[in-house]
Amino acid sequence: MRKPLTNFDRMFELMDESGLDAVIGTLPENVTYLTGFWAMTQWVRRGPQTYAFQPARGRGNAAIATSSGLLDLVSDQYVWVDDVRRFEYFQIEVDADARLSDEDAAQLKMLQTPQYKSSVEALVSIIRDNGLENATIGIDEVGITPTCFDELTAALPNVTFRRANSFLQKVRSIKTAEEIERLRGAARVGEMSIEAALAIAAEGVTELDFLSEFNVCTARNGGLPVSICIGFGDRSAMSNVQPSRNQLNPGDVIRFDVGGRYQHYRSDISRCASFGEPSAKVRQYHNALHKGIERGYEIIRPGLPVAQLYEAVMETVRTEGLPHYKRSHVGHGIGLDGYDFPNISPATDAVLEENMVLCLETPYYELGFAGLQVEDMLVVRSDGAESLMTTSGALKVLA
Amino acid sequence: MRKPLTNFDRMFELMDESGLDAVIGTLPENVTYLTGFWAMTQWVRRGPQTYAFQPARGRGNAAIATSSGLLDLVSDQYVWVDDVRRFEYFQIEVDADARLSDEDAAQLKMLQTPQYKSSVEALVSIIRDNGLENATIGIDEVGITPTCFDELTAALPNVTFRRANSFLQKVRSIKTAEEIERLRGAARVGEMSIEAALAIAAEGVTELDFLSEFNVCTARNGGLPVSICIGFGDRSAMSNVQPSRNQLNPGDVIRFDVGGRYQHYRSDISRCASFGEPSAKVRQYHNALHKGIERGYEIIRPGLPVAQLYEAVMETVRTEGLPHYKRSHVGHGIGLDGYDFPNISPATDAVLEENMVLCLETPYYELGFAGLQVEDMLVVRSDGAESLMTTSGALKVLA
Repeated sequence: MRKPLTNFDRMFELMDESGLDAVIGTLPENVTYLTGFWAMTQWVRRGPQTYAFQPARGRGNAAIATSSGLLDLVSDQYVWVDDVRRFEYFQIEVDADARLSDEDAAQLKMLQTPQYKSSVEALVSIIRDNGLENATIGIDEVGITPTCFDELTAALPNVTFRRANSFLQKVRSIKTAEEIERLRGAARVGEMSIEAALAIAAEGVTELDFLSEFNVCTARNGGLPVSICIGFGDRSAMSNVQPSRNQLNPGDVIRFDVGGRYQHYRSDISRCASFGEPSAKVRQYHNALHKGIERGYEIIRPGLPVAQLYEAVMETVRTEGLPHYKRSHVGHGIGLDGYDFPNISPATDAVLEENMVLCLETPYYELGFAGLQVEDMLVVRSDGAESLMTTSGALKVLA
Repeated sequence: MRKPLTNFDRMFELMDESGLDAVIGTLPENVTYLTGFWAMTQWVRRGPQTYAFQPARGRGNAAIATSSGLLDLVSDQYVWVDDVRRFEYFQIEVDADARLSDEDAAQLKMLQTPQYKSSVEALVSIIRDNGLENATIGIDEVGITPTCFDELTAALPNVTFRRANSFLQKVRSIKTAEEIERLRGAARVGEMSIEAALAIAAEGVTELDFLSEFNVCTARNGGLPVSICIGFGDRSAMSNVQPSRNQLNPGDVIRFDVGGRYQHYRSDISRCASFGEPSAKVRQYHNALHKGIERGYEIIRPGLPVAQLYEAVMETVRTEGLPHYKRSHVGHGIGLDGYDFPNISPATDAVLEENMVLCLETPYYELGFAGLQVEDMLVVRSDGAESLMTTSGALKVLA
């Protein structure tokens, strides 16, 4: 029933292509992706170290190096990696008279394994025990601190370490079925939260009131707000507009560009509404932006060069009513990170592949006027695009 | 009315002591601290780069290097640094017929400044324009990617870069009045959210129901949940217990160890309740843990060695009813990060200083029994501890 998140086939294939004997995840996204382990401290802070070690096929056993204080999360979560090495001291008592739950018994067993002095010492032991002291190992260079990396390379002078952050982004870009279902859930919570906020639209209501409704709905549905941009009227033209005391007035554009987290996966969705009848300019521009997205849906299929998707969307927006439309990209992958590979830009040689999950977006920001945007989440399927949206991207006119 | 967050006096003093000509913040916490700028992308993702440059007193002008796409946030927030250098392309249009708001006009002005190719190119220009090509510069090594750091050192071969993450932690450890008020607000939202969750206690209610009430209350009060541990019964003994479908039963301990964010500042609070009459063991142990915290309040004053605070709290817990109590630390600083300097452990030579804000905590985890904990937020004042709590840390017995 419970399935790993990892796309093992793709990972092993890319490791072979790249000549990597193993790869080490150090960012929280990569640790969760490779092992299932949501190591709270590294997700909510910068600095705490947890590593996921993944050898190439047949080159050893996957392993985790984490703090002794996080072992309860290993035992309580679905973690598909068995070799868990702990570092640093953490005190846990045991009631000798009690019958322990399975989770507590599993935690206790891990607490009885050797205690390494540091995250790096635990990682070094893993690499040594897999016989990889002379190997080529990719390491996600962004999540390990420079001090830890120095210790690692000093302890293993014959390992060739290669930066592997972008390698892991490429592995993660083709989603497994489990990931797609979580992303579908994330999208649903995001859409419901937009609907909940729109439901209180009335003259004098503030952007902060919208934020509150949005976040409450997200909380009620098991999500976490991450980056919530909500703007009314000319504030909607601020690309990252943070909700303020600005009040809703008749004729205002309302722009949402909102991202949350659900079962660790991200959403990123944009919808716009008009509070009362929109101006002809708002209608025309928004319609052009929406047509660009619809064009994207028509042509998305495995094998399509991403740069062609960019060009087709841009061209459609320009011909459908926004002739001066300029934009560096029209979307990006999404998964455990809000911006996964690929970026839908003209400069990429990436090609769409089956089971990529994309945010396709056409934002337009005009200071003194408004910000207008459509952003959908979708899956690249063998026969075309499957939308993860249940609401229309068209401009919603509130009576 | 609006006040910088930075403790400038302490920062300049520590820079002089350390022989630093300038310091560069690269983590989101340090950028916000040094400039007031909440650079959304670096807060919600790992990888996007924004830098805060701060010279020593009289050595130049503070500056920000950030993406062109974040300039709306610079203009819409209270940012007390004027020199903002932007990198990369971002398209914004302007309605020539409109009268721009002050925020939009400010954004437009910044968009008309030179566009640097990369975060590092912008940062190099700042260092050069301040005449510091041969200087000793501290850089927060955790937030800059290795690739960017390599580019930086290649471009400025005569700068001596020193790792400054712990330096900035020490600067941030003595809070300004503005920071203390935000932390007070964060604590208040956390306490209200605990109360809101406890209000639904009934047989059969789940930990997830509690989480929902907690997060909804946090959202209604302008906060964001960050790390929310809520456990009932024997699950309360998991140190990082993540809410599950576990149902509340008569006699259960309920343990909260909860952290949120409010106006960018963190809370970290623990409270325990008993659903119905607690066992004698629960009463005795929790009382001992609470007495430890009360002892801390009695002795906290500027000048007290942190290791002595640790020893006094531990000793009190042991003599008051938990003789086998062991623990690596009994708290930590709190601010923009959930764990600020100092750590309240036996191994530190840190000394309490006026306007440190601390979490003082006595957690106890016994598998098969329960987790019990008190954690208060408090300010070190010239005449002793000022609690930021409005609720008691004593065990709450729910009828």
